[in-house]
Amino acid sequence: MTVSDRWLLPDGVEDILPPLAGQIESLRREVMDTCQRWGYQLVIPPLIEYLESLFTGTGHDLELQTFKLTDQLTGRMMGLRADMTPQAARIDAHTLGQKGITRLCYAGHVLHTRPRHMLTGRTPIQAGCELFGSSSETADMEVISLMLETLRVSGLPRVHLDLAHVAIYENLVSEAGFDRVAGEAIFDAMGRKSVPELDAWLGDCPAGSAGEMLRKLARVSGGVEALAEAKQILAGAPEPLQHALGQLERVADMLSRDFPEVSFGFDFCELRGYNYHTGLVFAAYVPGHGDAVGKGGRYDAIGSDFGRARPATGFSLDIRSLASLGHRASHASGLIWAPAEDDDALDGVIAGLRLTETVIRALPEDKDTDPRARGCDRILVKKDGQWVVDHLD
Amino acid sequence: MTVSDRWLLPDGVEDILPPLAGQIESLRREVMDTCQRWGYQLVIPPLIEYLESLFTGTGHDLELQTFKLTDQLTGRMMGLRADMTPQAARIDAHTLGQKGITRLCYAGHVLHTRPRHMLTGRTPIQAGCELFGSSSETADMEVISLMLETLRVSGLPRVHLDLAHVAIYENLVSEAGFDRVAGEAIFDAMGRKSVPELDAWLGDCPAGSAGEMLRKLARVSGGVEALAEAKQILAGAPEPLQHALGQLERVADMLSRDFPEVSFGFDFCELRGYNYHTGLVFAAYVPGHGDAVGKGGRYDAIGSDFGRARPATGFSLDIRSLASLGHRASHASGLIWAPAEDDDALDGVIAGLRLTETVIRALPEDKDTDPRARGCDRILVKKDGQWVVDHLD
Repeated sequence: MTVSDRWLLPDGVEDILPPLAGQIESLRREVMDTCQRWGYQLVIPPLIEYLESLFTGTGHDLELQTFKLTDQLTGRMMGLRADMTPQAARIDAHTLGQKGITRLCYAGHVLHTRPRHMLTGRTPIQAGCELFGSSSETADMEVISLMLETLRVSGLPRVHLDLAHVAIYENLVSEAGFDRVAGEAIFDAMGRKSVPELDAWLGDCPAGSAGEMLRKLARVSGGVEALAEAKQILAGAPEPLQHALGQLERVADMLSRDFPEVSFGFDFCELRGYNYHTGLVFAAYVPGHGDAVGKGGRYDAIGSDFGRARPATGFSLDIRSLASLGHRASHASGLIWAPAEDDDALDGVIAGLRLTETVIRALPEDKDTDPRARGCDRILVKKDGQWVVDHLD
Repeated sequence: MTVSDRWLLPDGVEDILPPLAGQIESLRREVMDTCQRWGYQLVIPPLIEYLESLFTGTGHDLELQTFKLTDQLTGRMMGLRADMTPQAARIDAHTLGQKGITRLCYAGHVLHTRPRHMLTGRTPIQAGCELFGSSSETADMEVISLMLETLRVSGLPRVHLDLAHVAIYENLVSEAGFDRVAGEAIFDAMGRKSVPELDAWLGDCPAGSAGEMLRKLARVSGGVEALAEAKQILAGAPEPLQHALGQLERVADMLSRDFPEVSFGFDFCELRGYNYHTGLVFAAYVPGHGDAVGKGGRYDAIGSDFGRARPATGFSLDIRSLASLGHRASHASGLIWAPAEDDDALDGVIAGLRLTETVIRALPEDKDTDPRARGCDRILVKKDGQWVVDHLD
């Protein structure tokens, strides 16, 4: 092991340095403050849990993404959280156990065994909000609006929102009567938009059948015109699908009214990455970044695995990605340089300045240091026996 | 696996709920802001690293406390950070590689395989500051002052600071000529203040020898009178020890002058828990809490293991413990309840209020909810066609 090997970090793992670290911290604060002003209460779920509670109600994908550890105290297997949403659901179901509506928010590191996407590392900083106890469409609207509000705070340019509904796909597959293996193959082909594969699986389905609807729907995506097309294809479909389409339509209305700067589109069968969702789902994108910057939706099933069925909807963001993509106004002012001099009056002045300003005090090693090279635009100097702040040229 | 087992958390692992989570977050922000106003720049080191870089320059204790993982991408072993100080040293030595003084601060979760102390869990929230590039006593003073300042911000009552100096013990042991095994046995007996064991090891040492000095010093601890006693015992000891005693004396002077509310004491041989320190060390305690709430000191050796020798000093705190021990003024005001009503004017009023206030909007399920039970002390009502904020009785 050479010296240079010792400080290499694993792929997808990084040191976040100044000034980016400060930008991430300030964005994290603004996002959390926004969520809290909407009534979402902060919780801090643990980094590690027993595997059973981490995976309860979630899908296989999350299991593959989770690092496993042995608990030395009990010998049981623990996992490092790869997603905080199931943790929030567990807290709602058991630790808090409140009646009525519970709104929670959180922010923290999650770890993935492999990067989810070329552009994301293995240690994203997840921030999110979850709303428990309401199955109303108003709750879904609130969560979408709040996510777009936090993206506004992040200073993201041109946000695009993709909308989908898990119930449409699941109803059609179940009505078409496919077994689990076929269902998964179709899901996979849908995700890749592989028309030949879908034709092979669904090409023989009779006209007007669920299978034919699926095959037609897989080709439909885009703006409001796509929604109109989907309504035609699903004209004869049963009530739950009509209801799902109606929801998508009402969300589109809300978006046009409240977020005219956000473009949106529909994709009825692209459901990869929604591990535990059951209803309306959404993902936000920005130009030039292939991975979603925020996503979420309804997941009414997780709670029941914890012994308490609660309707739920929410979203999460990767603060790390947002900080590099957004263009936020920087309020950083220059720093003040203070001499090393041992002087009680100087100590007092520095203490006073530090209530609002950043003051770097010189050390004996700083004899030849240029304060400007350390980010200072002002310096403390003694004039007529008084310490005053002077500007550096 | 029953439902009730599923949501049990491992020992020493916890969900942090409202309002404690909010208090921790606000304390974390104030501590980080204080450090930044002293010129310490925020870095965000990764949760995981290869074991070699995590353990470089640190002691065996840290290795036992570290959870290990296999990197699926390379097959190499990684560890979950148990201490962020060595990470900051690595960042200073390699990632940043600045010339001159570098001041860094950080805050984040660390994980321990076992609780370090009965009172601490396995997932403390470590915050700290590290100052690289200065071997001056001024640097040590700055770091101690800043730690006490952050404890002030935390609202801790009656802080007591224990001071020690690793060089005193290490010089005496090396001069007495003990081998590694004997040295470790003596270190251990010192930590437990086991007089019989120390007598067995050191009883035969001739008068005036390093061994005799060690044995006498082990019985000395307390305030300024202990320092005077130590000076007598070490009267004939070589220069490095005199220098170390002088440092302790000057820190005592600084504390009496700048932090008159802080009591302090000396313990010359209690060095457990200082894994990589080389000089002046310190630990802060509060009444009724057996574990240190903050600790730190000089560690000039770590950097050299990363290929770049840099003098260093710093401190770290456990924000989780501080939040439960401190008594900070709460600025929390009550929340505002808004009705579910679909009304554009109401939407506008809520958006405006949320710039500074927390507004919870009722959902369809909230028909019978009492806003007071949700922490609200005000409510939005329509009067004469205008939305206004009314106080709840």
